[in-house]
Amino acid sequence: MSEPARIGLLGRGTVGGAFAKLVEERAGAVESVTGRRPELTGVLTRSDGDFEQILSASDVVVELMGGTDPARDHVLGALRAGKPVVTANKQLLAQHGEELFATAREAGVQLRFEAAVAGVIPIIRVIQESFGVTEVAKVFGIVNGTTNFILSEMASSGAAYEDVLRRAQELGYAEADPTEDVNGADAAAKMAILARLAFHTQVTLDEVDYEGIESIRPDDLAYAKELGLSLKLLGVAERRDGGISIRVFPCFLYRGHPLAPVEGPFNAVMVEAPEITEVTMSGPGAGGVQTASAVLGDVVSILSGDAPVHEVRADLPVVRDVTSSFYLHLEVADEPGVLAQIARVLGEKGVSVKSVVQRGLGDDARLVMVVHEAPEDSFIGAVQEISRLDFLRSPPRYIRVIEEEFV
Amino acid sequence: MSEPARIGLLGRGTVGGAFAKLVEERAGAVESVTGRRPELTGVLTRSDGDFEQILSASDVVVELMGGTDPARDHVLGALRAGKPVVTANKQLLAQHGEELFATAREAGVQLRFEAAVAGVIPIIRVIQESFGVTEVAKVFGIVNGTTNFILSEMASSGAAYEDVLRRAQELGYAEADPTEDVNGADAAAKMAILARLAFHTQVTLDEVDYEGIESIRPDDLAYAKELGLSLKLLGVAERRDGGISIRVFPCFLYRGHPLAPVEGPFNAVMVEAPEITEVTMSGPGAGGVQTASAVLGDVVSILSGDAPVHEVRADLPVVRDVTSSFYLHLEVADEPGVLAQIARVLGEKGVSVKSVVQRGLGDDARLVMVVHEAPEDSFIGAVQEISRLDFLRSPPRYIRVIEEEFV
Repeated sequence: MSEPARIGLLGRGTVGGAFAKLVEERAGAVESVTGRRPELTGVLTRSDGDFEQILSASDVVVELMGGTDPARDHVLGALRAGKPVVTANKQLLAQHGEELFATAREAGVQLRFEAAVAGVIPIIRVIQESFGVTEVAKVFGIVNGTTNFILSEMASSGAAYEDVLRRAQELGYAEADPTEDVNGADAAAKMAILARLAFHTQVTLDEVDYEGIESIRPDDLAYAKELGLSLKLLGVAERRDGGISIRVFPCFLYRGHPLAPVEGPFNAVMVEAPEITEVTMSGPGAGGVQTASAVLGDVVSILSGDAPVHEVRADLPVVRDVTSSFYLHLEVADEPGVLAQIARVLGEKGVSVKSVVQRGLGDDARLVMVVHEAPEDSFIGAVQEISRLDFLRSPPRYIRVIEEEFV
Repeated sequence: MSEPARIGLLGRGTVGGAFAKLVEERAGAVESVTGRRPELTGVLTRSDGDFEQILSASDVVVELMGGTDPARDHVLGALRAGKPVVTANKQLLAQHGEELFATAREAGVQLRFEAAVAGVIPIIRVIQESFGVTEVAKVFGIVNGTTNFILSEMASSGAAYEDVLRRAQELGYAEADPTEDVNGADAAAKMAILARLAFHTQVTLDEVDYEGIESIRPDDLAYAKELGLSLKLLGVAERRDGGISIRVFPCFLYRGHPLAPVEGPFNAVMVEAPEITEVTMSGPGAGGVQTASAVLGDVVSILSGDAPVHEVRADLPVVRDVTSSFYLHLEVADEPGVLAQIARVLGEKGVSVKSVVQRGLGDDARLVMVVHEAPEDSFIGAVQEISRLDFLRSPPRYIRVIEEEFV
C-alpha cells in the first residue's frame, strides 16, 4: 500500500466542513488518480488544534479560515516548511499575493487558489495553465454571486433593493453584513487576483476602482428592459493605452451578450485575446460543497504532479433506451376532431402535450407541438400510429427538445 | 542560458502553419513561464522530412497531420521513445485512445490533446484536472462549429439547408466534403473522447449513436421560434441506469438555456455533477490560430511540469481614463424642446445618442436613453451641465452599458 496523502485543514466553517466530508467521500477516486489515499491529519479551528503540530503531520495544507490574520502567518509558515498550500482566501491573495507567491517560489512548492475566485468555475487554472502564454487583452465578468442574485430578483420581481437584499439574506445568498458584496469590494479583490494572473503584473487592491449596486432602483431596471438591457455588476480588467485598467461597476448588457443570461447566484468570466477570440465560463459562484470541490481539485493537482494520463477506472455499460421531450410537426386535413384524435394516440402511449401551435393552410392545417419527456420508444410508437391516420397529409417530422425552461 | 525546448512538428496544414508562427511569436512568454525557449527542430510534411530524424532531435512531438495513418504510428513511436506528445487529432483519439493512453502510461510520458475537442475551450484540461475526482453526471454541448453555424444561419435567414451549407463553404466554416460534420460523425468522435474522460470508462466509437442536421427544414425552425425554441446539434454523454448513454442529435432548446445563445461557429460544453451543480464553457470551435493556441497551451504544460507559481513578468501602469457607453435616466418637465436641448448638450461634448424611451407622467416626463461610447469625462461633464437645466425635475442618474449587440 502506498503512503497516504496527509492533509492539514485550517478552518472548519461551511466550506471547511464540506471539504472534510468531500475528502472522505471521494478518497477512492483521489487514490485512483494520484496513487495516494487522502486523509485529514488535523483540523485547526478557532478554539481547537495546534498549527505547528498539524503542519508537521501534513503533506499538504488547506487554508479555509478566511480573513488575513492568522491565515497569512499560517500560509507563509506552511510554504516556508516546504508544504504546498491550497487556499480559498481571496482577501489574503489580493492583499498579500506578492509575498505569498515569492515565498512559494523560494520554497519551490505549489500555492493553489482556484476557489478564491468565481467559486467552482476553474478560471484560475485556465488563465494560469491554458492561457499562460496567451497575450490576454481583457478578463471580465460577474464575480460576485450575491449581487447577481439581487439584480436578477429586482429585475424579475420589480421589488426594491432593500426588500430583495433581505430575501437574499434569508436564502443564504447574502451575509448578515453584506457590505463587502454589495459595495463591490469583494468583486474588486477578485479582479485584482485575475488581473495579476492574466497580465503577469503586480496589482494592489487600491488600483481597482469599484462601485456597488446600493443605489440601483427598480425603475432603472424596468426602463432598461424596454431597451433590451439587463443589469450586472461587472468586473473588468483590460489592457489600455500601454497599461491596464481594473474596475468594478454596475453595467447594462444587451440581450445576446454572453453574460446577459447569467442569472441568480451564478458567476461568469470571459477571457479575450487575439489568438483565442473569447472564451466564456460560467457556474455557481459560491456554496459550501461547490467551493470545497474546487479546493479538492487543487489538492488533487498537487498530489498528481504532472498531468494525469487518462486511465480507465470503471466499466460502464452503454444504455440506449432513453426518454426525451419532442417537437412534432404534422400536416393534417383541417377538419373537426383531428387534434383530439392525435392527443388520444399520444395519451394512450403515455405521452403528454406541453404546447401546440395550429395554423390553417387552405383545406389543410399544420399542427406543431412540443410533448413532455417520455420514453423514446413510446413516442415513436405513437408517431407511427399517427402516421397511419387518414387525415394525415405528409409523414410526421420530429426533433428532440430539452424541456427545462431556465429564467 | 538554459537548454531550448525542441519541438518536432508533424504536419504543416492550416493549424500546423499557425502553430509554427505562434511558437515564434510567443517564444519569450514560453521561456519566462517554463524556463526554456521553444524552437522547432523539424517539420514533417507529406513530401518532406524524416520522422525518425525529427523524433531524435525533439523533446516534445506535436502531431497536427490529421487522419489515423501514419499519425497513429508516429504518435506511438514518439511515446515509446519517451517523448511527450501533443495532438489535435480527434479521430486518432476516438479510434485508438486506449492504445495511445496505455503506451503513454507505460512510457511514463504525457499525452495531451486539448485542441481535439471544442477548439480553444479548455474542456479537456478542466474535465481531467479540475474535475478529475468529481462524480460527473453529464457532459453535453455543441461540439461542432460547422453545424452550429448552419443552424444559426437557417434560423436567422429562413434559407434552406443546401443554400446555407454553400455559404458556410464559401466562408471556410464547412469543408468541401462536409459529410462528417453535417451527419454528426465528427461530434460523435468528440463525445466519445469526452465521455471516456468524464466517466473514466472505455468508450468505442460504435457506442455513440448519432444523427445529423441534413433533414432539418427552414419551417421547423420558423415554427419552433414561435414556441420560443432554437435548434442546436447536441452531443450528450450521461450516466443513466447504472451505465452511460452517448448520443448526438439535433435538439431544440428554450430561450434561457445556457446553450441557447451560442450562435455561429462557436462551441459550448456543460458539465453537471452534484458537487459542482453545472459549469458551462464556450468559445470558438475551430480556426487555425485558435486551435494552435490550444496546442501551445499543452506544450507549455508539458514543459512546466508542476503548475507554475505565479510570477510577475511585466510592470504595467494602471490607466484610469476610459470610455464607456451609458444609460441615462432624466425626469424633466413635459414641454417642447427639452429633448433637443439635452441632445445639444450631449452633442457639444461629443456624446451621441443611440436610443431613447420617453414617457409622460402628468406635467412631467421621463426620458431614458442609451448613449454611444465616449470618454467618461465628457459624458459626466455633459450630465453636470444637463443637471443645471431648469426643466430638470430630479438629479440625473446614469449606469454604464456594454454597447455590443450580439446576435
